[in-house]
Amino acid sequence: MTDDLVVVRPLVPPWDRLKSALFEVFESQVLTNDGPRVRQLEALLSTELGIADVAVTGSGTTAIQLACSALELRGEVLVPAAAFPATAQAVLRAGATPVEVDIEDTYLTIDPDAVRQAVTSRTCAILAVHSFGCPADIDALRSIARAAGVPLIFDAATCWGVNFRGRPLLSYGDVATLSLHATKLTHSIEGGAVFGNTRAIAGTVRRLRNFGFGESGALRTGTNARMSELHAAIGAVVHAGAATEVARRTAVRGWYQEALAELNWLRPCDFRAEAGPAVAALPVRLTTDAPVDAEALVRAMLAHGVHTRAYFAGRYRVGGLRRAGPTPRADWAARHIVCLPFWGRLTETDITRVVDALKAVARKPALAG
Amino acid sequence: MTDDLVVVRPLVPPWDRLKSALFEVFESQVLTNDGPRVRQLEALLSTELGIADVAVTGSGTTAIQLACSALELRGEVLVPAAAFPATAQAVLRAGATPVEVDIEDTYLTIDPDAVRQAVTSRTCAILAVHSFGCPADIDALRSIARAAGVPLIFDAATCWGVNFRGRPLLSYGDVATLSLHATKLTHSIEGGAVFGNTRAIAGTVRRLRNFGFGESGALRTGTNARMSELHAAIGAVVHAGAATEVARRTAVRGWYQEALAELNWLRPCDFRAEAGPAVAALPVRLTTDAPVDAEALVRAMLAHGVHTRAYFAGRYRVGGLRRAGPTPRADWAARHIVCLPFWGRLTETDITRVVDALKAVARKPALAG
Repeated sequence: MTDDLVVVRPLVPPWDRLKSALFEVFESQVLTNDGPRVRQLEALLSTELGIADVAVTGSGTTAIQLACSALELRGEVLVPAAAFPATAQAVLRAGATPVEVDIEDTYLTIDPDAVRQAVTSRTCAILAVHSFGCPADIDALRSIARAAGVPLIFDAATCWGVNFRGRPLLSYGDVATLSLHATKLTHSIEGGAVFGNTRAIAGTVRRLRNFGFGESGALRTGTNARMSELHAAIGAVVHAGAATEVARRTAVRGWYQEALAELNWLRPCDFRAEAGPAVAALPVRLTTDAPVDAEALVRAMLAHGVHTRAYFAGRYRVGGLRRAGPTPRADWAARHIVCLPFWGRLTETDITRVVDALKAVARKPALAG
Repeated sequence: MTDDLVVVRPLVPPWDRLKSALFEVFESQVLTNDGPRVRQLEALLSTELGIADVAVTGSGTTAIQLACSALELRGEVLVPAAAFPATAQAVLRAGATPVEVDIEDTYLTIDPDAVRQAVTSRTCAILAVHSFGCPADIDALRSIARAAGVPLIFDAATCWGVNFRGRPLLSYGDVATLSLHATKLTHSIEGGAVFGNTRAIAGTVRRLRNFGFGESGALRTGTNARMSELHAAIGAVVHAGAATEVARRTAVRGWYQEALAELNWLRPCDFRAEAGPAVAALPVRLTTDAPVDAEALVRAMLAHGVHTRAYFAGRYRVGGLRRAGPTPRADWAARHIVCLPFWGRLTETDITRVVDALKAVARKPALAG
């Protein structure tokens, strides 16, 4: 029996390199609490991206939480109606109110026209997501945020390694947040980071992640959102392999593009021309000819031992959020967007297996119900 | 030059045992996301404590957050006015309102009389802290909570290994939360746990820690509060050494008691007679004869290379919290309670060094300002 093909496998560096990094942490007896390895990881990210203001956190979710807290957001934060739940949940846990806005059709990122209409006197920030690593409409969103006098935050959870107009995508927006979760291109098992691009925010995030301690007392919005020294040490080791992982994923993407061309009922999602590489995930969109919808496809593929995800649908959708208006395109995306297995060590044989399973589902769509 | 004596050093198991546990995690390629090692750690805690309903979390702070979220607390939560900031901050981040209540003089835990007076129709829970591992007044608080019809939650962050009336202290209260932070008697570097004693809460906490995913959609209060498989694996290895650490800390406490008896201006804080062992920390109270107050003592000891902490004062105090009434005893504690260095590998020579430094401060208190 063949093992299931999962959606993503983490980049795991050679044990010898991990072992010596881990040994050093235990030898030092400094296992957490903003130790030297957390600061080294911050320096590494800062140097590679050319962004001075960087603070790491315990997760990508707490990166968003602490960005909101550091900006002292009180009021409504405009978020895309199709997004991983962490985005809206982080706004809620930071004490602000997420308001869902529709996405645009082509790139699945928040729709600037809908954002423009959604801005009110209660709006305190725009929190856009670079979905699956594809940039949101940065220029239009920047104009709207400036006109409204509110900060523009980019949830760039999946955007390590992505460039836009020759610069790291993470350097756009007043503030950007990153995930260093195990499924990401570079990771610290669990982790995240906040980048202050137009304003210095890292100092406040460092204070907030450690209970907000300070000479004037502890901040109300403080919490424990630290990255452990162990996770930070692993982050540095993993990071050394990130460039290789990009190259591998680029090859995997190529195999997919070739193999998926045979199918007329789905195709890889579009990616903005000025950005790349598109190696965060492999989202596909089902066309009107598709024999099944996204959730039925996920179930049917699982029966073939292939894990896929309809991230905008069903179990991933946060209930009861406020909406600025109708969200027909986000509702469409819930029924038509599916992520296929995608990571660097996938082989051409694995891709053939995925595409064969897709073909089998198309032949017997009735079984997908 | 002698190294500084820090307040606490983590229990670090032998490298050989850590190494094989860590190797297995990386070999499995399952690095996080509620994997088998998290479930094994839950089973281990559950078996040892005899509590069926256990869910681990990414930190002791998120354990409190998710306990509040799982109980759907909306309204005011009564908390002690002298506590580590995480307690009130977790209530805030879960969307409820902490209201500070004074503590009792002897055991420094929340004062039942003050709690009784503080209960209003807005009160949705009582969140007491077993401060430095010393139980709060469990019987009185249980009566008040039952009469008010609200849950009684114990923040038992430091209470691993403590028994009360022959049962684990963690088994008291409707819900109890634990920290598995590196400074604790048993730890997973960063980590926590929630225990449902009178109600099943672990299933909801497991859902909330993983973005609240579920067939009905994602819960608004979901977040990422997972413990990584790496931290969980380390938790199991560390735990095997916890009994030895208890024995060592008991010896260290004995040396302190003997040595501190020479000083007439401070003494170890009281610990309830029906509870023990008292090995979470070594808090002392300054008497009226003390030459300095708590914060001045911390500064003066640091000049002697000895780290101590006035956890109820200054930089640790959360600003701007609502109070149910005057809190004279919490204010007293801020000026008179100090934690001395305390962990298992301290030697009798180390204790002599701490006490010599205390004597030196008493001789030249003016330098403490």
